Amino acid sequence: MTIISHPSDLRLQAAAATGPRVLVPTMGALHAGHLVLIRRARELAGPDGTVMVSIFVNPIQFDRVADLAAYPQPLEADLAACREAGVDLVFTPAPGTMYHPDRSVTVTESSLSQSLCGASRPGHFDGVCTVVLKLFLLSGCGLAVFGEKDFQQLAIIRRMVRDLDLPVTIVAHPTLREPDGLALSSRNVRLTPAQRAAAPQLRQSLLAAKTRLATGIREVSELLETARMEIESSPLARIDYLSLVDAETLQPVTRIERPAVLAAAVFYGEVRLIDHVGIAP
Amino acid sequence: MTIISHPSDLRLQAAAATGPRVLVPTMGALHAGHLVLIRRARELAGPDGTVMVSIFVNPIQFDRVADLAAYPQPLEADLAACREAGVDLVFTPAPGTMYHPDRSVTVTESSLSQSLCGASRPGHFDGVCTVVLKLFLLSGCGLAVFGEKDFQQLAIIRRMVRDLDLPVTIVAHPTLREPDGLALSSRNVRLTPAQRAAAPQLRQSLLAAKTRLATGIREVSELLETARMEIESSPLARIDYLSLVDAETLQPVTRIERPAVLAAAVFYGEVRLIDHVGIAP
Repeated sequence: MTIISHPSDLRLQAAAATGPRVLVPTMGALHAGHLVLIRRARELAGPDGTVMVSIFVNPIQFDRVADLAAYPQPLEADLAACREAGVDLVFTPAPGTMYHPDRSVTVTESSLSQSLCGASRPGHFDGVCTVVLKLFLLSGCGLAVFGEKDFQQLAIIRRMVRDLDLPVTIVAHPTLREPDGLALSSRNVRLTPAQRAAAPQLRQSLLAAKTRLATGIREVSELLETARMEIESSPLARIDYLSLVDAETLQPVTRIERPAVLAAAVFYGEVRLIDHVGIAP
Repeated sequence: MTIISHPSDLRLQAAAATGPRVLVPTMGALHAGHLVLIRRARELAGPDGTVMVSIFVNPIQFDRVADLAAYPQPLEADLAACREAGVDLVFTPAPGTMYHPDRSVTVTESSLSQSLCGASRPGHFDGVCTVVLKLFLLSGCGLAVFGEKDFQQLAIIRRMVRDLDLPVTIVAHPTLREPDGLALSSRNVRLTPAQRAAAPQLRQSLLAAKTRLATGIREVSELLETARMEIESSPLARIDYLSLVDAETLQPVTRIERPAVLAAAVFYGEVRLIDHVGIAP
Protein backbone atom coordinates (compact mmCIF):
# COMPACT_ATOMS: atom_id res chain seq x y z
CA MET A 1 0.00 0.00 0.00
CA THR A 2 1.41 3.35 -1.07
CA ILE A 3 1.04 6.29 1.32
CA ILE A 4 1.21 9.73 -0.26
CA SER A 5 1.27 13.04 1.57
CA HIS A 6 1.74 15.61 -1.19
CA PRO A 7 -0.88 16.49 -3.83
CA SER A 8 1.62 16.57 -6.70
CA ASP A 9 2.80 13.07 -5.76
CA LEU A 10 -0.79 11.85 -5.82
CA ARG A 11 -1.20 13.18 -9.34
CA LEU A 12 1.97 11.44 -10.52
CA GLN A 13 1.24 8.12 -8.82
CA ALA A 14 -2.38 8.10 -9.92
CA ALA A 15 -1.43 8.84 -13.52
CA ALA A 16 0.81 5.76 -13.50
CA ALA A 17 -1.92 3.54 -12.01
CA THR A 18 -3.50 0.87 -14.18
CA GLY A 19 -7.11 -0.24 -14.50
CA PRO A 20 -10.11 1.60 -13.08
CA ARG A 21 -9.22 4.21 -10.47
CA VAL A 22 -11.75 4.27 -7.63
CA LEU A 23 -11.61 6.88 -4.87
CA VAL A 24 -13.16 6.77 -1.40
CA PRO A 25 -12.86 10.27 0.06
CA THR A 26 -12.86 10.25 3.88
CA MET A 27 -11.92 12.43 6.83
CA GLY A 28 -10.34 9.39 8.50
CA ALA A 29 -11.44 7.94 11.87
CA LEU A 30 -12.49 5.00 9.77
CA HIS A 31 -15.25 2.75 11.06
CA ALA A 32 -17.22 -0.16 9.60
CA GLY A 33 -19.28 2.32 7.54
CA HIS A 34 -16.14 3.41 5.71
CA LEU A 35 -14.92 -0.15 5.33
CA VAL A 36 -18.00 -1.19 3.37
CA LEU A 37 -17.36 1.78 1.04
CA ILE A 38 -13.79 0.57 0.58
CA ARG A 39 -14.96 -2.99 -0.09
CA ARG A 40 -17.39 -1.63 -2.67
CA ALA A 41 -14.51 0.33 -4.24
CA ARG A 42 -12.42 -2.86 -4.35
CA GLU A 43 -15.21 -4.65 -6.24
CA LEU A 44 -15.58 -1.75 -8.66
CA ALA A 45 -11.84 -1.51 -9.30
CA GLY A 46 -11.43 -5.24 -9.82
CA PRO A 47 -8.13 -7.02 -9.25
CA ASP A 48 -6.26 -4.83 -11.77
CA GLY A 49 -7.70 -1.47 -10.74
CA THR A 50 -6.53 0.96 -8.10
CA VAL A 51 -8.42 1.67 -4.89
CA MET A 52 -7.51 5.06 -3.43
CA VAL A 53 -8.61 6.34 -0.02
CA SER A 54 -8.10 9.96 0.93
CA ILE A 55 -7.86 10.83 4.61
CA PHE A 56 -8.14 14.58 5.09
CA VAL A 57 -9.94 16.55 7.77
CA ASN A 58 -10.80 19.38 5.42
CA PRO A 59 -10.60 22.63 7.40
CA ILE A 60 -12.67 24.71 4.98
CA GLN A 61 -15.79 22.60 5.48
CA PHE A 62 -15.90 23.16 9.24
CA ASP A 63 -18.02 26.07 10.37
CA ARG A 64 -17.13 25.55 14.05
CA VAL A 65 -13.48 25.68 15.13
CA ALA A 66 -14.22 23.46 18.14
CA ASP A 67 -15.70 20.74 15.93
CA LEU A 68 -12.59 20.78 13.70
CA ALA A 69 -10.26 20.64 16.72
CA ALA A 70 -12.21 17.76 18.29
CA TYR A 71 -12.47 15.69 15.10
CA PRO A 72 -10.74 12.35 15.82
CA GLN A 73 -7.59 11.65 13.78
CA PRO A 74 -6.30 8.16 14.60
CA LEU A 75 -4.01 7.97 11.55
CA GLU A 76 -2.10 4.80 12.44
CA ALA A 77 -5.28 2.82 13.05
CA ASP A 78 -6.75 4.21 9.80
CA LEU A 79 -3.71 3.12 7.80
CA ALA A 80 -3.86 -0.36 9.33
CA ALA A 81 -7.56 -0.60 8.45
CA CYS A 82 -6.85 0.47 4.86
CA ARG A 83 -4.05 -2.05 4.54
CA GLU A 84 -6.29 -4.83 5.79
CA ALA A 85 -9.09 -3.77 3.43
CA GLY A 86 -6.84 -4.08 0.38
CA VAL A 87 -6.45 -0.38 -0.38
CA ASP A 88 -3.74 0.33 -2.96
CA LEU A 89 -3.05 3.98 -2.21
CA VAL A 90 -3.77 6.25 0.76
CA PHE A 91 -3.58 10.01 0.33
CA THR A 92 -3.08 11.85 3.63
CA PRO A 93 -2.13 15.39 2.64
CA ALA A 94 -0.01 17.24 5.17
CA PRO A 95 -1.61 20.44 6.52
CA GLY A 96 -0.89 23.38 4.27
CA THR A 97 -0.40 21.32 1.11
CA MET A 98 -4.02 21.35 -0.04
CA TYR A 99 -4.68 25.10 0.17
CA HIS A 100 -2.45 28.02 -0.75
CA PRO A 101 -2.43 30.84 1.83
CA ASP A 102 -3.98 33.17 -0.78
CA ARG A 103 -6.42 30.66 -2.26
CA SER A 104 -9.39 32.45 -3.79
CA VAL A 105 -11.24 29.92 -5.96
CA THR A 106 -14.17 27.99 -4.50
CA VAL A 107 -16.82 25.70 -5.90
CA THR A 108 -20.22 26.90 -4.70
CA GLU A 109 -23.64 25.27 -4.77
CA SER A 110 -26.60 27.62 -4.47
CA SER A 111 -29.73 25.46 -4.39
CA LEU A 112 -29.51 22.04 -2.74
CA SER A 113 -27.21 23.47 -0.06
CA GLN A 114 -29.70 26.05 1.18
CA SER A 115 -31.64 23.73 3.49
CA LEU A 116 -30.85 21.22 6.26
CA CYS A 117 -27.11 21.02 7.09
CA GLY A 118 -26.34 23.79 4.61
CA ALA A 119 -28.64 26.20 6.44
CA SER A 120 -27.14 25.44 9.85
CA ARG A 121 -23.51 25.17 8.69
CA PRO A 122 -22.73 28.21 6.49
CA GLY A 123 -20.06 27.50 3.88
CA HIS A 124 -19.94 23.81 4.76
CA PHE A 125 -20.97 22.45 1.37
CA ASP A 126 -18.82 24.90 -0.58
CA GLY A 127 -15.90 23.51 1.40
CA VAL A 128 -17.04 19.96 0.63
CA CYS A 129 -17.48 20.63 -3.09
CA THR A 130 -14.11 22.36 -3.36
CA VAL A 131 -12.13 19.59 -1.66
CA VAL A 132 -13.98 16.79 -3.45
CA LEU A 133 -13.35 18.44 -6.83
CA LYS A 134 -9.66 18.75 -5.97
CA LEU A 135 -9.45 15.13 -4.86
CA PHE A 136 -11.20 13.97 -8.05
CA LEU A 137 -8.79 15.95 -10.22
CA LEU A 138 -5.63 15.01 -8.32
CA SER A 139 -6.52 11.32 -8.23
CA GLY A 140 -7.88 11.18 -11.77
CA CYS A 141 -10.51 8.77 -10.48
CA GLY A 142 -13.26 7.59 -12.80
CA LEU A 143 -15.40 6.31 -9.91
CA ALA A 144 -15.92 7.55 -6.36
CA VAL A 145 -17.84 5.90 -3.54
CA PHE A 146 -19.83 7.88 -0.95
CA GLY A 147 -22.06 6.89 1.94
CA GLU A 148 -25.78 7.61 1.85
CA LYS A 149 -25.70 8.73 5.47
CA ASP A 150 -24.65 12.20 4.30
CA PHE A 151 -27.50 12.29 1.80
CA GLN A 152 -27.46 16.05 1.27
CA GLN A 153 -23.71 15.88 0.58
CA LEU A 154 -24.33 13.04 -1.86
CA ALA A 155 -27.02 15.03 -3.71
CA ILE A 156 -24.76 18.08 -3.91
CA ILE A 157 -21.79 16.09 -5.19
CA ARG A 158 -23.94 14.47 -7.85
CA ARG A 159 -25.13 17.96 -8.82
CA MET A 160 -21.52 19.20 -8.99
CA VAL A 161 -20.54 16.28 -11.21
CA ARG A 162 -23.45 17.08 -13.52
CA ASP A 163 -23.04 20.87 -13.59
CA LEU A 164 -19.24 20.91 -13.98
CA ASP A 165 -19.00 17.91 -16.32
CA LEU A 166 -16.67 16.02 -14.01
CA PRO A 167 -15.66 12.70 -15.62
CA VAL A 168 -16.47 10.75 -12.45
CA THR A 169 -19.25 8.26 -11.71
CA ILE A 170 -20.64 8.57 -8.19
CA VAL A 171 -21.53 5.31 -6.42
CA ALA A 172 -23.60 5.49 -3.22
CA HIS A 173 -23.72 2.91 -0.45
CA PRO A 174 -26.44 2.55 2.23
CA THR A 175 -25.87 3.71 5.79
CA LEU A 176 -24.44 1.17 8.23
CA ARG A 177 -25.99 1.11 11.70
CA GLU A 178 -25.35 -0.16 15.20
CA PRO A 179 -27.75 -2.90 16.40
CA ASP A 180 -29.84 -0.22 18.16
CA GLY A 181 -30.19 1.75 14.91
CA LEU A 182 -27.66 4.54 15.51
CA ALA A 183 -25.99 5.42 12.20
CA LEU A 184 -22.25 4.77 12.24
CA SER A 185 -20.30 8.03 12.38
CA SER A 186 -16.77 9.04 13.25
CA ARG A 187 -18.31 11.44 15.76
CA ASN A 188 -19.96 8.62 17.78
CA VAL A 189 -16.73 7.95 19.70
CA ARG A 190 -17.05 11.43 21.23
CA LEU A 191 -20.42 10.59 22.86
CA THR A 192 -20.47 10.02 26.62
CA PRO A 193 -22.12 6.75 27.71
CA ALA A 194 -25.29 8.68 28.62
CA GLN A 195 -25.33 10.50 25.28
CA ARG A 196 -24.67 7.23 23.46
CA ALA A 197 -27.64 5.67 25.25
CA ALA A 198 -29.88 8.59 24.25
CA ALA A 199 -28.75 8.93 20.62
CA PRO A 200 -30.72 6.01 19.07
CA GLN A 201 -33.91 7.98 19.80
CA LEU A 202 -33.09 10.12 16.74
CA ARG A 203 -33.48 7.16 14.40
CA GLN A 204 -36.46 5.77 16.28
CA SER A 205 -38.34 9.07 16.03
CA LEU A 206 -37.72 9.37 12.29
CA LEU A 207 -38.94 5.81 11.76
CA ALA A 208 -41.98 6.44 13.96
CA ALA A 209 -42.88 9.46 11.85
CA LYS A 210 -42.61 7.34 8.73
CA THR A 211 -44.90 4.76 10.29
CA ARG A 212 -47.44 7.41 11.27
CA LEU A 213 -47.43 8.59 7.68
CA ALA A 214 -48.03 5.05 6.46
CA THR A 215 -51.04 4.79 8.75
CA GLY A 216 -52.64 7.80 7.15
CA ILE A 217 -51.48 10.85 9.09
CA ARG A 218 -50.62 13.43 6.39
CA GLU A 219 -50.43 16.61 8.43
CA VAL A 220 -46.76 17.53 8.12
CA SER A 221 -46.67 20.12 10.89
CA GLU A 222 -48.23 17.65 13.34
CA LEU A 223 -45.81 14.95 12.24
CA LEU A 224 -42.79 17.20 12.79
CA GLU A 225 -44.10 18.37 16.16
CA THR A 226 -44.51 14.78 17.40
CA ALA A 227 -41.04 13.77 16.19
CA ARG A 228 -39.56 16.88 17.76
CA MET A 229 -41.13 16.06 21.12
CA GLU A 230 -39.93 12.46 20.93
CA ILE A 231 -36.35 13.40 20.12
CA GLU A 232 -36.27 16.05 22.81
CA SER A 233 -37.81 13.70 25.36
CA SER A 234 -34.17 13.14 26.30
CA PRO A 235 -32.77 16.18 28.13
CA LEU A 236 -29.41 15.39 26.47
CA ALA A 237 -30.78 16.07 22.97
CA ARG A 238 -30.94 19.48 21.34
CA ILE A 239 -32.38 19.61 17.82
CA ASP A 240 -30.37 21.59 15.27
CA TYR A 241 -32.96 20.99 12.56
CA LEU A 242 -35.79 18.61 11.82
CA SER A 243 -37.18 19.05 8.36
CA LEU A 244 -39.24 17.37 5.69
CA VAL A 245 -37.84 18.16 2.25
CA ASP A 246 -38.49 17.19 -1.35
CA ALA A 247 -36.17 14.31 -2.23
CA GLU A 248 -34.98 16.03 -5.40
CA THR A 249 -34.84 19.76 -4.65
CA LEU A 250 -34.21 19.40 -0.87
CA GLN A 251 -36.60 22.29 -0.36
CA PRO A 252 -38.97 22.04 2.64
CA VAL A 253 -42.43 20.74 1.80
CA THR A 254 -45.69 21.04 3.68
CA ARG A 255 -47.47 18.27 1.75
CA ILE A 256 -46.18 14.89 0.61
CA GLU A 257 -47.00 14.63 -3.08
CA ARG A 258 -43.62 13.44 -4.35
CA PRO A 259 -40.79 11.43 -2.77
CA ALA A 260 -39.58 13.27 0.32
CA VAL A 261 -36.94 12.94 3.00
CA LEU A 262 -37.39 13.50 6.72
CA ALA A 263 -34.00 14.61 7.99
CA ALA A 264 -32.62 15.77 11.31
CA ALA A 265 -29.45 16.98 12.97
CA VAL A 266 -29.34 16.68 16.74
CA PHE A 267 -26.72 17.77 19.24
CA TYR A 268 -25.93 15.40 22.06
CA GLY A 269 -23.68 17.65 24.11
CA GLU A 270 -21.13 19.04 21.63
CA VAL A 271 -21.58 16.12 19.23
CA ARG A 272 -23.84 16.77 16.27
CA LEU A 273 -25.39 13.68 14.69
CA ILE A 274 -27.47 13.48 11.51
CA ASP A 275 -29.90 10.94 10.15
CA HIS A 276 -32.76 10.74 7.67
CA VAL A 277 -35.50 8.49 6.31
CA GLY A 278 -37.02 8.42 2.86
CA ILE A 279 -40.77 9.03 2.61
CA ALA A 280 -42.82 7.74 -0.33
CA PRO A 281 -45.82 9.84 -1.44
CA MET B 1 -12.00 18.67 -39.07
CA THR B 2 -14.60 17.26 -36.71
CA ILE B 3 -17.43 19.54 -35.63
CA ILE B 4 -19.15 18.62 -32.38
CA SER B 5 -22.23 20.25 -30.93
CA HIS B 6 -23.00 18.18 -27.84
CA PRO B 7 -20.89 18.11 -24.66
CA SER B 8 -21.10 14.33 -24.25
CA ASP B 9 -19.86 13.86 -27.82
CA LEU B 10 -16.90 16.13 -27.07
CA ARG B 11 -15.98 13.96 -24.11
CA LEU B 12 -16.14 10.78 -26.19
CA GLN B 13 -14.23 12.19 -29.17
CA ALA B 14 -11.58 13.83 -27.01
CA ALA B 15 -11.05 10.63 -25.03
CA ALA B 16 -10.28 8.84 -28.30
CA ALA B 17 -7.83 11.52 -29.48
CA THR B 18 -4.15 10.74 -29.59
CA GLY B 19 -1.14 12.84 -28.62
CA PRO B 20 -1.26 16.10 -26.67
CA ARG B 21 -4.73 17.66 -26.52
CA VAL B 22 -4.56 21.44 -26.79
CA LEU B 23 -7.65 23.62 -26.35
CA VAL B 24 -8.23 27.20 -27.53
CA PRO B 25 -11.42 28.42 -25.83
CA THR B 26 -13.11 31.20 -27.80
CA MET B 27 -16.44 32.95 -28.17
CA GLY B 28 -16.07 32.82 -31.95
CA ALA B 29 -15.98 35.87 -34.24
CA LEU B 30 -12.44 34.74 -34.85
CA HIS B 31 -9.87 37.33 -35.92
CA ALA B 32 -6.11 37.30 -36.41
CA GLY B 33 -5.64 37.44 -32.62
CA HIS B 34 -7.38 34.09 -32.28
CA LEU B 35 -5.55 32.61 -35.24
CA VAL B 36 -2.14 33.14 -33.61
CA LEU B 37 -3.49 31.33 -30.54
CA ILE B 38 -4.58 28.45 -32.78
CA ARG B 39 -1.18 28.41 -34.54
CA ARG B 40 0.50 28.28 -31.12
CA ALA B 41 -1.80 25.40 -30.17
CA ARG B 42 -0.83 23.59 -33.38
CA GLU B 43 2.86 23.93 -32.47
CA LEU B 44 2.21 22.69 -28.93
CA ALA B 45 0.13 19.72 -30.12
CA GLY B 46 2.65 18.67 -32.75
CA PRO B 47 1.66 16.70 -35.83
CA ASP B 48 0.23 13.81 -33.76
CA GLY B 49 -1.64 15.87 -31.21
CA THR B 50 -5.17 17.25 -31.30
CA VAL B 51 -5.99 20.95 -31.59
CA MET B 52 -9.45 21.73 -30.27
CA VAL B 53 -11.22 25.08 -30.58
CA SER B 54 -14.38 25.81 -28.65
CA ILE B 55 -16.77 28.43 -30.01
CA PHE B 56 -19.34 29.34 -27.39
CA VAL B 57 -20.81 32.71 -26.52
CA ASN B 58 -21.17 31.85 -22.86
CA PRO B 59 -24.36 33.49 -21.60
CA ILE B 60 -23.48 33.31 -17.89
CA GLN B 61 -20.45 35.58 -18.29
CA PHE B 62 -22.47 38.46 -19.78
CA ASP B 63 -23.70 41.00 -17.27
CA ARG B 64 -25.52 43.04 -19.94
CA VAL B 65 -28.22 41.37 -22.04
CA ALA B 66 -27.64 43.85 -24.88
CA ASP B 67 -23.93 42.96 -25.06
CA LEU B 68 -24.78 39.25 -25.29
CA ALA B 69 -27.41 39.87 -27.98
CA ALA B 70 -25.02 42.03 -30.01
CA TYR B 71 -22.06 39.68 -29.77
CA PRO B 72 -21.15 38.71 -33.36
CA GLN B 73 -21.61 35.02 -34.22
CA PRO B 74 -20.37 34.39 -37.78
CA LEU B 75 -20.21 30.61 -37.36
CA GLU B 76 -19.61 29.64 -41.00
CA ALA B 77 -16.66 32.04 -41.33
CA ASP B 78 -15.28 30.81 -38.01
CA LEU B 79 -15.43 27.18 -39.12
CA ALA B 80 -13.69 28.05 -42.39
CA ALA B 81 -10.95 29.88 -40.47
CA CYS B 82 -10.49 26.89 -38.15
CA ARG B 83 -10.30 24.51 -41.11
CA GLU B 84 -7.67 26.67 -42.77
CA ALA B 85 -5.66 26.94 -39.53
CA GLY B 86 -5.40 23.16 -39.20
CA VAL B 87 -7.79 22.70 -36.28
CA ASP B 88 -8.70 19.05 -35.64
CA LEU B 89 -11.90 19.51 -33.67
CA VAL B 90 -14.33 22.39 -33.21
CA PHE B 91 -16.79 22.33 -30.33
CA THR B 92 -19.82 24.59 -30.90
CA PRO B 93 -22.32 23.57 -28.24
CA ALA B 94 -25.94 24.18 -29.14
CA PRO B 95 -27.77 26.55 -26.78
CA GLY B 96 -29.15 24.71 -23.78
CA THR B 97 -26.63 21.88 -23.90
CA MET B 98 -24.00 23.49 -21.67
CA TYR B 99 -26.24 24.44 -18.73
CA HIS B 100 -29.11 22.56 -17.12
CA PRO B 101 -32.18 24.70 -16.39
CA ASP B 102 -31.69 24.08 -12.65
CA ARG B 103 -27.89 24.40 -12.63
CA SER B 104 -26.66 25.45 -9.21
CA VAL B 105 -22.89 24.87 -9.13
CA THR B 106 -20.54 27.71 -9.97
CA VAL B 107 -16.80 28.26 -9.73
CA THR B 108 -16.17 31.54 -7.93
CA GLU B 109 -13.03 33.66 -7.55
CA SER B 110 -13.03 36.10 -4.65
CA SER B 111 -9.79 38.06 -4.88
CA LEU B 112 -8.34 38.77 -8.33
CA SER B 113 -11.85 39.32 -9.68
CA GLN B 114 -12.69 42.18 -7.31
CA SER B 115 -11.03 44.95 -9.35
CA LEU B 116 -11.06 46.18 -12.97
CA CYS B 117 -13.48 44.24 -15.22
CA GLY B 118 -14.67 42.18 -12.24
CA ALA B 119 -15.77 45.32 -10.40
CA SER B 120 -17.67 46.71 -13.37
CA ARG B 121 -19.11 43.40 -14.60
CA PRO B 122 -20.64 41.56 -11.59
CA GLY B 123 -20.53 37.79 -11.97
CA HIS B 124 -18.51 37.97 -15.18
CA PHE B 125 -15.46 36.05 -13.98
CA ASP B 126 -17.50 33.42 -12.13
CA GLY B 127 -19.15 32.77 -15.49
CA VAL B 128 -15.75 32.61 -17.18
CA CYS B 129 -14.27 30.26 -14.58
CA THR B 130 -17.29 27.97 -14.70
CA VAL B 131 -17.34 27.60 -18.47
CA VAL B 132 -13.56 27.25 -18.77
CA LEU B 133 -13.53 24.53 -16.13
CA LYS B 134 -16.30 22.69 -17.97
CA LEU B 135 -14.47 23.01 -21.29
CA PHE B 136 -11.25 21.74 -19.73
CA LEU B 137 -13.00 18.72 -18.24
CA LEU B 138 -15.07 17.89 -21.32
CA SER B 139 -12.09 18.18 -23.67
CA GLY B 140 -9.62 16.50 -21.34
CA CYS B 141 -7.04 18.98 -22.59
CA GLY B 142 -3.58 19.04 -21.04
CA LEU B 143 -2.77 22.47 -22.50
CA ALA B 144 -4.89 25.52 -23.16
CA VAL B 145 -3.93 28.72 -24.96
CA PHE B 146 -5.26 32.15 -23.94
CA GLY B 147 -4.58 35.68 -25.16
CA GLU B 148 -2.85 38.19 -22.90
CA LYS B 149 -5.28 40.89 -23.98
CA ASP B 150 -7.70 39.68 -21.32
CA PHE B 151 -4.98 39.78 -18.71
CA GLN B 152 -7.29 39.72 -15.68
CA GLN B 153 -9.08 36.69 -17.14
CA LEU B 154 -5.70 35.03 -17.68
CA ALA B 155 -4.63 35.70 -14.08
CA ILE B 156 -7.92 34.33 -12.75
CA ILE B 157 -7.75 31.19 -14.89
CA ARG B 158 -4.18 30.53 -13.73
CA ARG B 159 -5.41 30.96 -10.16
CA MET B 160 -8.29 28.54 -10.79
CA VAL B 161 -5.89 25.96 -12.22
CA ARG B 162 -3.70 26.32 -9.13
CA ASP B 163 -6.45 26.35 -6.52
CA LEU B 164 -8.54 23.51 -8.00
CA ASP B 165 -5.59 21.35 -9.10
CA LEU B 166 -6.72 21.27 -12.71
CA PRO B 167 -4.36 19.08 -14.76
CA VAL B 168 -3.99 21.76 -17.45
CA THR B 169 -1.01 23.92 -18.41
CA ILE B 170 -1.99 27.47 -19.36
CA VAL B 171 -0.08 29.04 -22.25
CA ALA B 172 -0.42 32.79 -22.84
CA HIS B 173 0.13 34.65 -26.10
CA PRO B 174 0.79 38.41 -26.53
CA THR B 175 -1.93 40.73 -27.77
CA LEU B 176 -2.17 41.30 -31.51
CA ARG B 177 -2.76 44.89 -32.65
CA GLU B 178 -3.87 46.88 -35.66
CA PRO B 179 -1.14 49.08 -37.20
CA ASP B 180 -2.51 52.05 -35.20
CA GLY B 181 -2.17 50.14 -31.93
CA LEU B 182 -5.80 49.13 -31.36
CA ALA B 183 -5.90 45.70 -29.77
CA LEU B 184 -7.67 43.12 -31.91
CA SER B 185 -11.08 42.25 -30.48
CA SER B 186 -14.21 40.58 -31.75
CA ARG B 187 -16.06 43.69 -30.61
CA ASN B 188 -14.11 46.01 -32.98
CA VAL B 189 -16.42 45.15 -35.89
CA ARG B 190 -19.24 46.83 -34.00
CA LEU B 191 -17.44 50.21 -33.95
CA THR B 192 -18.73 52.94 -36.28
CA PRO B 193 -16.04 54.53 -38.49
CA ALA B 194 -15.89 57.53 -36.13
CA GLN B 195 -15.59 55.30 -33.05
CA ARG B 196 -12.97 53.18 -34.81
CA ALA B 197 -10.97 56.35 -35.54
CA ALA B 198 -11.17 57.43 -31.88
CA ALA B 199 -10.43 54.04 -30.28
CA PRO B 200 -6.61 53.95 -30.72
CA GLN B 201 -6.39 56.83 -28.23
CA LEU B 202 -6.94 54.25 -25.45
CA ARG B 203 -3.67 52.50 -26.25
CA GLN B 204 -1.82 55.76 -26.88
CA SER B 205 -2.84 57.18 -23.51
CA LEU B 206 -1.73 54.05 -21.65
CA LEU B 207 1.64 54.14 -23.42
CA ALA B 208 2.00 57.87 -22.74
CA ALA B 209 1.43 57.23 -19.03
CA LYS B 210 4.09 54.55 -19.10
CA THR B 211 6.50 57.00 -20.78
CA ARG B 212 5.75 59.69 -18.20
CA LEU B 213 6.55 57.16 -15.48
CA ALA B 214 9.84 56.31 -17.17
CA THR B 215 10.76 59.99 -17.20
CA GLY B 216 10.36 60.22 -13.45
CA ILE B 217 6.75 61.14 -12.74
CA ARG B 218 5.73 58.85 -9.89
CA GLU B 219 2.54 60.53 -8.67
CA VAL B 220 -0.09 57.93 -9.49
CA SER B 221 -3.13 60.14 -9.06
CA GLU B 222 -1.66 62.75 -11.43
CA LEU B 223 -0.76 60.03 -13.91
CA LEU B 224 -4.28 58.61 -13.90
CA GLU B 225 -5.81 62.07 -14.19
CA THR B 226 -3.72 62.89 -17.27
CA ALA B 227 -4.51 59.57 -18.94
CA ARG B 228 -8.19 60.02 -18.14
CA MET B 229 -8.22 63.46 -19.76
CA GLU B 230 -6.40 62.16 -22.83
CA ILE B 231 -8.78 59.24 -23.34
CA GLU B 232 -11.83 61.42 -22.83
CA SER B 233 -10.49 64.10 -25.17
CA SER B 234 -12.65 62.26 -27.68
CA PRO B 235 -16.35 62.95 -27.04
CA LEU B 236 -17.03 59.41 -28.26
CA ALA B 237 -15.13 57.86 -25.37
CA ARG B 238 -16.60 57.09 -21.95
CA ILE B 239 -14.26 55.52 -19.41
CA ASP B 240 -15.63 52.49 -17.54
CA TYR B 241 -12.49 52.20 -15.42
CA LEU B 242 -8.88 53.33 -15.52
CA SER B 243 -6.82 51.79 -12.78
CA LEU B 244 -3.28 51.04 -11.73
CA VAL B 245 -3.09 47.67 -10.00
CA ASP B 246 -0.45 45.40 -8.56
CA ALA B 247 0.55 42.89 -11.25
CA GLU B 248 0.12 39.95 -8.91
CA THR B 249 -2.82 40.76 -6.62
CA LEU B 250 -4.64 43.05 -9.12
CA GLN B 251 -5.43 45.35 -6.18
CA PRO B 252 -5.23 49.10 -6.85
CA VAL B 253 -1.94 50.70 -5.82
CA THR B 254 -1.09 54.31 -5.10
CA ARG B 255 2.70 53.82 -5.35
CA ILE B 256 4.74 51.78 -7.79
CA GLU B 257 7.05 49.63 -5.73
CA ARG B 258 6.43 46.30 -7.46
CA PRO B 259 5.43 45.33 -11.01
CA ALA B 260 2.11 46.96 -11.81
CA VAL B 261 -0.43 47.10 -14.62
CA LEU B 262 -2.21 50.16 -15.93
CA ALA B 263 -5.53 48.92 -17.27
CA ALA B 264 -8.60 50.53 -18.75
CA ALA B 265 -12.02 49.73 -20.14
CA VAL B 266 -13.57 52.38 -22.35
CA PHE B 267 -16.97 52.53 -24.00
CA TYR B 268 -17.10 53.83 -27.57
CA GLY B 269 -20.84 54.04 -27.97
CA GLU B 270 -22.16 50.65 -26.82
CA VAL B 271 -18.88 48.91 -27.52
CA ARG B 272 -16.66 48.32 -24.50
CA LEU B 273 -12.95 47.91 -25.26
CA ILE B 274 -10.18 46.96 -22.84
CA ASP B 275 -6.40 47.36 -22.91
CA HIS B 276 -3.48 47.47 -20.49
CA VAL B 277 0.27 48.09 -20.22
CA GLY B 278 2.76 46.59 -17.80
CA ILE B 279 4.65 49.01 -15.55
CA ALA B 280 8.02 48.11 -14.05
CA PRO B 281 8.86 49.53 -10.59
